[in-house]
Amino acid sequence: MTQVTVDLNSDMGEGFGPWTMGDDDAILDIVSSANVACGFHGGDPEIMAHTFAEARKRGVAIGAHPGYPDLWGFGRRVIPHSAGEIERFTAYQIGAAQALAAYAGHRITYVKAHGALGNLSSADPEVARAVARAVAAVDPSLELLAIARSEQVAAGEAAGLTVRSEIFADRAYLETGLLVPRSEPGAVIHDADQAAARMVRMVTDGALETVAGTRLPCAIESICVHSDTPGAVALAARVRAALEAEGITIAPFAPG
Amino acid sequence: MTQVTVDLNSDMGEGFGPWTMGDDDAILDIVSSANVACGFHGGDPEIMAHTFAEARKRGVAIGAHPGYPDLWGFGRRVIPHSAGEIERFTAYQIGAAQALAAYAGHRITYVKAHGALGNLSSADPEVARAVARAVAAVDPSLELLAIARSEQVAAGEAAGLTVRSEIFADRAYLETGLLVPRSEPGAVIHDADQAAARMVRMVTDGALETVAGTRLPCAIESICVHSDTPGAVALAARVRAALEAEGITIAPFAPG
Amino acid sequence: MTQVTVDLNSDMGEGFGPWTMGDDDAILDIVSSANVACGFHGGDPEIMAHTFAEARKRGVAIGAHPGYPDLWGFGRRVIPHSAGEIERFTAYQIGAAQALAAYAGHRITYVKAHGALGNLSSADPEVARAVARAVAAVDPSLELLAIARSEQVAAGEAAGLTVRSEIFADRAYLETGLLVPRSEPGAVIHDADQAAARMVRMVTDGALETVAGTRLPCAIESICVHSDTPGAVALAARVRAALEAEGITIAPFAPG
Amino acid sequence: MTQVTVDLNSDMGEGFGPWTMGDDDAILDIVSSANVACGFHGGDPEIMAHTFAEARKRGVAIGAHPGYPDLWGFGRRVIPHSAGEIERFTAYQIGAAQALAAYAGHRITYVKAHGALGNLSSADPEVARAVARAVAAVDPSLELLAIARSEQVAAGEAAGLTVRSEIFADRAYLETGLLVPRSEPGAVIHDADQAAARMVRMVTDGALETVAGTRLPCAIESICVHSDTPGAVALAARVRAALEAEGITIAPFAPG
Repeated sequence: MTQVTVDLNSDMGEGFGPWTMGDDDAILDIVSSANVACGFHGGDPEIMAHTFAEARKRGVAIGAHPGYPDLWGFGRRVIPHSAGEIERFTAYQIGAAQALAAYAGHRITYVKAHGALGNLSSADPEVARAVARAVAAVDPSLELLAIARSEQVAAGEAAGLTVRSEIFADRAYLETGLLVPRSEPGAVIHDADQAAARMVRMVTDGALETVAGTRLPCAIESICVHSDTPGAVALAARVRAALEAEGITIAPFAPG
Repeated sequence: MTQVTVDLNSDMGEGFGPWTMGDDDAILDIVSSANVACGFHGGDPEIMAHTFAEARKRGVAIGAHPGYPDLWGFGRRVIPHSAGEIERFTAYQIGAAQALAAYAGHRITYVKAHGALGNLSSADPEVARAVARAVAAVDPSLELLAIARSEQVAAGEAAGLTVRSEIFADRAYLETGLLVPRSEPGAVIHDADQAAARMVRMVTDGALETVAGTRLPCAIESICVHSDTPGAVALAARVRAALEAEGITIAPFAPG
Repeated sequence: MTQVTVDLNSDMGEGFGPWTMGDDDAILDIVSSANVACGFHGGDPEIMAHTFAEARKRGVAIGAHPGYPDLWGFGRRVIPHSAGEIERFTAYQIGAAQALAAYAGHRITYVKAHGALGNLSSADPEVARAVARAVAAVDPSLELLAIARSEQVAAGEAAGLTVRSEIFADRAYLETGLLVPRSEPGAVIHDADQAAARMVRMVTDGALETVAGTRLPCAIESICVHSDTPGAVALAARVRAALEAEGITIAPFAPG
Repeated sequence: MTQVTVDLNSDMGEGFGPWTMGDDDAILDIVSSANVACGFHGGDPEIMAHTFAEARKRGVAIGAHPGYPDLWGFGRRVIPHSAGEIERFTAYQIGAAQALAAYAGHRITYVKAHGALGNLSSADPEVARAVARAVAAVDPSLELLAIARSEQVAAGEAAGLTVRSEIFADRAYLETGLLVPRSEPGAVIHDADQAAARMVRMVTDGALETVAGTRLPCAIESICVHSDTPGAVALAARVRAALEAEGITIAPFAPG
């Protein structure tokens, strides 16, 4: 009997200056990996160093979470940038995070693209390659946390990176393996028990479960839970508890 | 007969977006080390990567040149920040520079504080220690380029860093070893020949030369030349030529 | 028997992009004047227009609340700026607020300096004059909301402005009429009933009440309540209720 | 015999902090209207106030030149923003410019959209209407400087604004009345004499002249000359001289 292990990740450190976002303290007690904003769409050196230090105390792995240079828009807008520009601003953010992680006595072990950069790189191979090339250029030992079955996976592998696939705890999947767009009914699963049961099934099966009930086999190395939506903490806790109740171990895919 | 070697350094990459500053191309052909702005007071990922790549092509060493987070004020204002905040925003900038240097196929080998952060850390031991601690925390193999005989030297040594001392090609020195304030007559030496002859004397003697003619012995491992003032390129070229004419080798103290 | 009227003001619109601060909706139902951040230390065009529109709906007067250009530090740091620079960045913010107020169908009728700009201009006559000159240059019909008995009052009057004096609902006063520094015990009054009773006494008496019980006569045209501290809404509501219970009318000093 | 009058306008005040762009002093001696950046894509309160004061001294009219909030990209990128957001950030910038113009003893009399906001609003009716509505909401007496025969004209008129049409001194026109894209040969007219002669013909004829030689009748109330390209000053001076040699008066369409 094989021990099944999966990671729980969440976006974190998304405040800026006097402003906070999400309940990082509560989420850090639940997840095994923290995707930390790097100052371009949220986060600042104070918040980054603090979040890294808190993660270290709790044995939570940390990843750089670079986004578009768009504080006002929180990295949710696709700003027109060439692939080369994306490479360079992504590299910049990764390095900044690595330095502050070292300062805080921790270590960045992976990278995950934020917001519009995440969405675009999951669908657009050129943007996916730009992000992957940035990671590889800065440090090829960094792993890439990719949206399962997205363009990020192929781009990461082509760049020689170790790629880890994540699924979303509260999102429904189309037959194509893509997420049901948020504009459609049923896109978001609000019921914590339902979300938790789905996660147990998907992780145990090693497959995405679509809205039609189809199983799409794929590596599932991490589950993404939110930190800043109403009920986020409760849902994350419920998912963790359900996985552990099934004997599934929660652990970082890339410990620091 | 010992071969005397000295470094020539200059601030570079100080544009932002559509705006340029200084004649970096010309200066890169003259200096052996480039202090590159890291995006907080000037510079951006595009400019940083470009400057690092150009430096690599010419065999010019590169240093991170962190400054206060103050694009509007170009890092020339002392923004009230605690020592801890200074440590963290300095670390952030160093990491960003390291990452983009790796991206550009080069390597950051030293750090020099910019503008108000440079001035304040040369006089205020607490700020000097904050900068030195940031460097040591990010990467203790990074060297610190310090203003000769300033608080930066002691702070860098206390942090376990290799410290390199610089003098200014166009600035006069007080008996204390401090720079004559810019507000006083004679503070800036505008004549290129005079500046060049002084540099040859100081490097050969291993001593600062004060306005009163006193010699203040100190290590002189680098000479700082400007890149953005009228006549900057001509003065830098003249200093280099004069040193070479005396058989002094111009070379980076910390090659990449 | 004279009808006593006083204004209740609060800082508002202090979010930025995705980040919120304070419970503006609740506070807007209590106060008669809203000091609205203008984008330099907080606020953005979206938040400004929204806050102005909400104030209009409720008959709440609006003031421009300019601060230092320091989003990261929320305008709480004294950034070194000349008096002329302060004039110009203050004027810029006032104009931006006027335009968005017009867009939202409302009208800016007064100006109050935020954070470090407020503190510094209450103590430093030169900074006080800079702010007052900016107001007068942009629109001399704008009133100045000043900290009672501070340098702001004299500067505003010298600039020909109508000056309105405010006291703080939750702060204790020294014999000098200055606020007890926050670092000292008793500086902040946390008990809502105590704060409310004090406000009734001060407004009725037309005098500041000091920690030693001395009465310092002064015009009191507005009471400042917080919007973003724990218990802020409850305290503001309590102050309003206590004033109204004594027959004091709450109304803007400068209706839009 | 009717006296023909035309305005010459140029973008100005496009520096930021320590960085300069273009030769504003030289251009201000040639043009009759200055489109001044408002701090979102370039410009800052110091530069704005200075530019307004210099324009006032020379009798040059001033317009607000709002752009996308994109300092790094100089407002040349189309940032995804709703029409409502465009209205509000445009209104903000207009108000800031009005206030600093008042501070400098001058008056904003018109608005012209910058960069990507200008290009997009010339082609996209919804964006054109957003800009026009912002102008009308802030101050309906402000005129709109529009690209001749573009969507800006209709949108400005629909908003009840006085619309003034401009042509470009150094750009070729398609049969549609649109500019030849910069990517195509012949898009930019580099020869100053040729540009000047064309401007005289177009202004005299009251018609655009296309690359095929067709005349497209339209109001021509202003000619746009660049301030920041090589040869910009010389071309602007040549255009002005050629117009005056033909007896055409250069004057602002909306004096301050």
